[in-house]
Amino acid sequence: AIFAAIQTALKPKTQPLKGRHVLITAGPTFEPLDPVRGITNRSSGKQGYAIAAAAAQAGAQVTLVSGPVSLTTPDGVTRIDVETAQQMFEAVHAHLPADVFIGVAAVGDWRAKTIARDKQKKGEGDELSVTLVKNPDILASVGKHETLRPRLVIGFAAETRNVEVYGQTKLRTKGADAIMANDVSKDVFDADTTNMILIDASGPTSGRHMTKTEAAADLIHYIAAKLT
Amino acid sequence: AIFAAIQTALKPKTQPLKGRHVLITAGPTFEPLDPVRGITNRSSGKQGYAIAAAAAQAGAQVTLVSGPVSLTTPDGVTRIDVETAQQMFEAVHAHLPADVFIGVAAVGDWRAKTIARDKQKKGEGDELSVTLVKNPDILASVGKHETLRPRLVIGFAAETRNVEVYGQTKLRTKGADAIMANDVSKDVFDADTTNMILIDASGPTSGRHMTKTEAAADLIHYIAAKLT
Repeated sequence: AIFAAIQTALKPKTQPLKGRHVLITAGPTFEPLDPVRGITNRSSGKQGYAIAAAAAQAGAQVTLVSGPVSLTTPDGVTRIDVETAQQMFEAVHAHLPADVFIGVAAVGDWRAKTIARDKQKKGEGDELSVTLVKNPDILASVGKHETLRPRLVIGFAAETRNVEVYGQTKLRTKGADAIMANDVSKDVFDADTTNMILIDASGPTSGRHMTKTEAAADLIHYIAAKLT
Repeated sequence: AIFAAIQTALKPKTQPLKGRHVLITAGPTFEPLDPVRGITNRSSGKQGYAIAAAAAQAGAQVTLVSGPVSLTTPDGVTRIDVETAQQMFEAVHAHLPADVFIGVAAVGDWRAKTIARDKQKKGEGDELSVTLVKNPDILASVGKHETLRPRLVIGFAAETRNVEVYGQTKLRTKGADAIMANDVSKDVFDADTTNMILIDASGPTSGRHMTKTEAAADLIHYIAAKLT
C-alpha cells in the first residue's frame, strides 16, 4: 500500500493516453500435443507486461491478453489469461474496439492437427511424426479488420537474422502501422534488456540495446505522438 | 534473515537424512524445434522443489537438477539448471553417486530429429511435419546403473488414466524401488495440491488428495524408514 502510494505520487502528471483503450497481447502461447505436452516458445512476457504497465501509467485503459507466464499483473491493467493461439485470437476480437492494438505475444504459428486425448507412451519405434497446421494470424486479423481496426496497430517481430527486412515485410503483409523488430539471436529471452528497432512507413529507427522498460517507454511516447 | 532464523529454530531436531546425498530432478524439459520454439510440458516444478526442500530440512545434502521453472531454490539445496532431457541426463550422471535418486522432472520423451538453425517461417502449405526421436530414459539409466545405482531409486508417473497399472509397469521396467503416481486428469498442474499414490514392491498405498508439501513430507518419511 505504501509502495502503491509512492508509485501514485511519482506518476507523471501528464497522462497522454488518458481516455484511450490499449489492447495488448503478451507472453508465449502453448499448443497442446496431448494432456501433458505441448509446443511453446521462449517468450517470458516481460516486454509485453512492461508495455502494459507503461500504457496504464500513461493513463490508458489497458486490456492485456496473456499467454502462460509467471509475472504479476501491472497495476491498473485488466488481464485475460489464455493458453492457445486460437484462444488468444478470440480474446483479442472479444475486446475490440480499441484505439491501439500492440501484439507483443509470441504467438505459436502452428498447432497439432490432432490433440491426443491421453498422454502418448514411448511405444515401439524410435521416431514419431507430428503433423502441425497453421494458427490464425492475430496481428493481420486486427490490422486488416474491416470495421473495428484500431487507429494504431503495432506488431512485434522476433527474428534471428535479417531483422529489418522481415520487419518491413511484416509491416506490409499484416496491415500494421509499425513493427518493433528485435534481434533474438543475442540473449534477449527472459532477459531484462533487448535490441529493438521500430519500423514504420518512414523507415527504421536505429536500433539500440536498452532495457525492456526503456523500450516500453519509447513505444508509449511514439504512440502518444501518433494519436495527437 | 529473521525469517531464516525462525526457520532454523523450527527445524526438526531429528535429521533422519543427515549424511545422505539426495539427487532430485524437477520441472519440465524444453526441447528446441528452432531458436524460438520448442516442445515442453506442463510441469511447474512445485512438487520436485517441495521434495528438495523437505530433504534438505531432513538434513540431506541435496542436488536439484532443474528444468526451466520460475521457482526460488530452497535453502540448503544445490541447484543445477538444464534445459533439454539430454542435458538433464548428463547432469544427473555427473552428480552420482547418491544415496537416493528421486526423478520428479517431467522429462520430454521426444526431441526434434533436427533443430532448425533459424526461426521457421509460416511458408507455403498449410501443414508442417515434424519428426521426433526418443530421448534417453533418465530414470531407467539410474535404476539399472551397473556400478553407481543409489540405494533407493524413486520415480514419478503423471498419467491421465490407469494410474496404478502404469505405475506398476514403470516400477518394473525402470528398475525403480518406488513410483509416486499421480492422476493428472484432475487439476494438478501448477496447483498446490496433488492426487498421489505410492507404489512399491508391497503394492500401492491408498491415494489421497493432499498438498504438494504434504506429499513431499510423506515421501521423506518413507525414504528415511527405507534407509534405516
